[in-house]
Amino acid sequence: MNYKQLLSEVIKFQSASTDAQYQDEIQKTVNWYKNIFETDGFKVNVITGYDNPIIIASYAADPQYKTCLIYGHYDVQPASKNEGWDNDPFTLTEKNGRLVARGVIDNKGQNLVHISTVIELIKEKSLGYNVTFMIEGNEETGSPHLETFIKDNQELLEADFVMISDGEISGGVPNIEVSFRGGFNSTLTVTVGTQDLHSGLYGSAAPNAIHELGKVIASLYDKENKVAVPGFYDDVLPVTQELLDNNKTIPYSTEEYKRITGRHAMLSEQGYDFYTQTGLRPAIEISGIQAGYMGDGYRNAIPYKATAKINFRLVKNQNAQTIIEKFKQQVRSILPEYADFVFETVGPYEGVVLDTNNPYVQKAKIILELIWQKNAILKYNGGGLPIATYFDSILNIPQVLIPLANEDCNMHGANENFAVDYCEKGLAFSKRFLSKE
Amino acid sequence: MNYKQLLSEVIKFQSASTDAQYQDEIQKTVNWYKNIFETDGFKVNVITGYDNPIIIASYAADPQYKTCLIYGHYDVQPASKNEGWDNDPFTLTEKNGRLVARGVIDNKGQNLVHISTVIELIKEKSLGYNVTFMIEGNEETGSPHLETFIKDNQELLEADFVMISDGEISGGVPNIEVSFRGGFNSTLTVTVGTQDLHSGLYGSAAPNAIHELGKVIASLYDKENKVAVPGFYDDVLPVTQELLDNNKTIPYSTEEYKRITGRHAMLSEQGYDFYTQTGLRPAIEISGIQAGYMGDGYRNAIPYKATAKINFRLVKNQNAQTIIEKFKQQVRSILPEYADFVFETVGPYEGVVLDTNNPYVQKAKIILELIWQKNAILKYNGGGLPIATYFDSILNIPQVLIPLANEDCNMHGANENFAVDYCEKGLAFSKRFLSKE
Repeated sequence: MNYKQLLSEVIKFQSASTDAQYQDEIQKTVNWYKNIFETDGFKVNVITGYDNPIIIASYAADPQYKTCLIYGHYDVQPASKNEGWDNDPFTLTEKNGRLVARGVIDNKGQNLVHISTVIELIKEKSLGYNVTFMIEGNEETGSPHLETFIKDNQELLEADFVMISDGEISGGVPNIEVSFRGGFNSTLTVTVGTQDLHSGLYGSAAPNAIHELGKVIASLYDKENKVAVPGFYDDVLPVTQELLDNNKTIPYSTEEYKRITGRHAMLSEQGYDFYTQTGLRPAIEISGIQAGYMGDGYRNAIPYKATAKINFRLVKNQNAQTIIEKFKQQVRSILPEYADFVFETVGPYEGVVLDTNNPYVQKAKIILELIWQKNAILKYNGGGLPIATYFDSILNIPQVLIPLANEDCNMHGANENFAVDYCEKGLAFSKRFLSKE
Repeated sequence: MNYKQLLSEVIKFQSASTDAQYQDEIQKTVNWYKNIFETDGFKVNVITGYDNPIIIASYAADPQYKTCLIYGHYDVQPASKNEGWDNDPFTLTEKNGRLVARGVIDNKGQNLVHISTVIELIKEKSLGYNVTFMIEGNEETGSPHLETFIKDNQELLEADFVMISDGEISGGVPNIEVSFRGGFNSTLTVTVGTQDLHSGLYGSAAPNAIHELGKVIASLYDKENKVAVPGFYDDVLPVTQELLDNNKTIPYSTEEYKRITGRHAMLSEQGYDFYTQTGLRPAIEISGIQAGYMGDGYRNAIPYKATAKINFRLVKNQNAQTIIEKFKQQVRSILPEYADFVFETVGPYEGVVLDTNNPYVQKAKIILELIWQKNAILKYNGGGLPIATYFDSILNIPQVLIPLANEDCNMHGANENFAVDYCEKGLAFSKRFLSKE
């Protein structure tokens, strides 16, 4: 099939966006896509000025047809053989029923399922939609200019609906992703003075920044695993019975959770199931902390400063700015007068819940169930997908989010892989979906 | 005077014990002391087998006399000019009424006050005690083998009392140090699993090691600044009215505290003054903490492991092993079942309160007050002085601890200095104290 040939070509480019040294590889990658699309009659725009180039490739099959916008990204995480790969990460290999290479899942390989399908359907003259591909190169750095890009280029992106395949399939049944949490990152720095102090001479008499930051951390969650910041849930929409019922149908095993996470317990509020908890309820997670001396031995000083990195995951209807204010009030109320703090935030983006009452999602569901011979589930995803948020708020058209990757694909890790049977199901889905009726 | 000549010689040796590269310098230092003592008729033993050599130098003035054991250490902290020194740290310089060099206070220069005085008194035939100097070379690495050394060499160290000058003078009045806190260092590691987890996919549903460690830290002190570990104070002796009255006489200024510490508040239990709080009450201080990702940007993972270094300062009558058990019980009671912890401790040593009802302390007090023309204070020190603990528990003889250093001597820092007027007062004290009546 054409798919594997194309994949082996595009995999070779080390198109890592997280490190400036790969700019040449980025350019080669863009040229490759441009050439592929132009060869098959697409109209291609390579748009610069929004960080790495964004490729917009449109194929007009028939003015009567609906237009499908397909989003993907060509940038990848860096990889090197010594990180545990069995083979060169930038050479596609096939082993034990898996296609292995950096980007094979995230996102070159998943996105290419649709590209190769569309090219095939063009050749067969059986493409059922006008198609526009939008392939960006900064997903791995958080797509910082994508919102502006979409706002600036709405005409180019005009479509009836969006299709995205950029995730993993949970529970061994076909998934349709319908929501993502929003959120932001932050750094909280607590200070109680201007210098560290000898812990013998001052211990028990001088404020300690770690003690104060510890109080803040301990104040974040109550015993029922609810965020204990006053007003934190004010704007959170109640989880409807319909959603709860839906989520109960998602296969979940505590044993499997423990095996994958290494954790001895799953936490939840009021008995919510895992997918409701992570997909539809907000979170505050301290992702890093540092203060004082942590080298060899001991330097017995009382730290004047302690810093934590904090990741906020918010759900639809929560406003990041409101949460920032409430959090700052909480920190101020917990800290004593003698302690100060600085709270810096970056990158707020809103959570999104997509509407599933549209013919595109319904069609996807039917096709998935046909191919998998299993009921498809609606998955409320705890991660963030800013692009879905931007498409929702700016383009305001239906989105069909169909992850194609196997759950053990090791995205961002060594031996990133696409199970061949999942890949084949993906190709079958794409072909069936995009073909003329 | 002879003092300054000797000091300029001994300062030159970079006798840092914290770094193995200075072993040659250690040996040169030991040879220097040996030579100085032998030249003036001391019997010298250089004892090896307890880490760096320990010098024991005895001078028998008269069998009728009492014997004074004088402790000091010849090892220093490392120093290099680029750390902010105005001149080479291993060349004695005099500037603005200060003698400046690494070790000028800690402890070569302070100890040498007594050495040069004794040598002078020998020459004048007016030494009033038999004298034994014990000068070790591992004080800066925590004197790990000193307890064993003292136990093994009690005959060599036989004396009627001990004299030590190894600290700073607080409050601008002459000080006699009468107690030190004991304690130990420790590392607490909390784990909630075996790997970090994506905070989008698992946030609010998976245990977070930093959250759990934060709860432990927040549980250490109550709002009255008392350690909230149950039973922590069980063995702490009440602070007597006599001690409280004594400590009120120590000059203390909140403004000065704020200036020196950079802190906006002094913490204390039940209105204890600073010297009672730090000298006679125990403390638990987190001296370092680390977990998760703290590099540039954000890696939004939920840490499975979080580590803190903790410094315990205990007072006389508290037993380190008992406190370790109580602390572990506290950690276990605060952590949920799904969290594990490892608590490792090093170097417990007991706190000590010295008896001041002996003729040596009384004599020191009278002489200090004559020289300073100010009332001397008894100072209860929050730091640790393991040697005083060992002398107390093993030799069980009176100890006279007279710090000679100016408070702004910058011990362990750049431009470590001995104020010339403090040095002269020290020499005057030593001469008066050690002379025949």
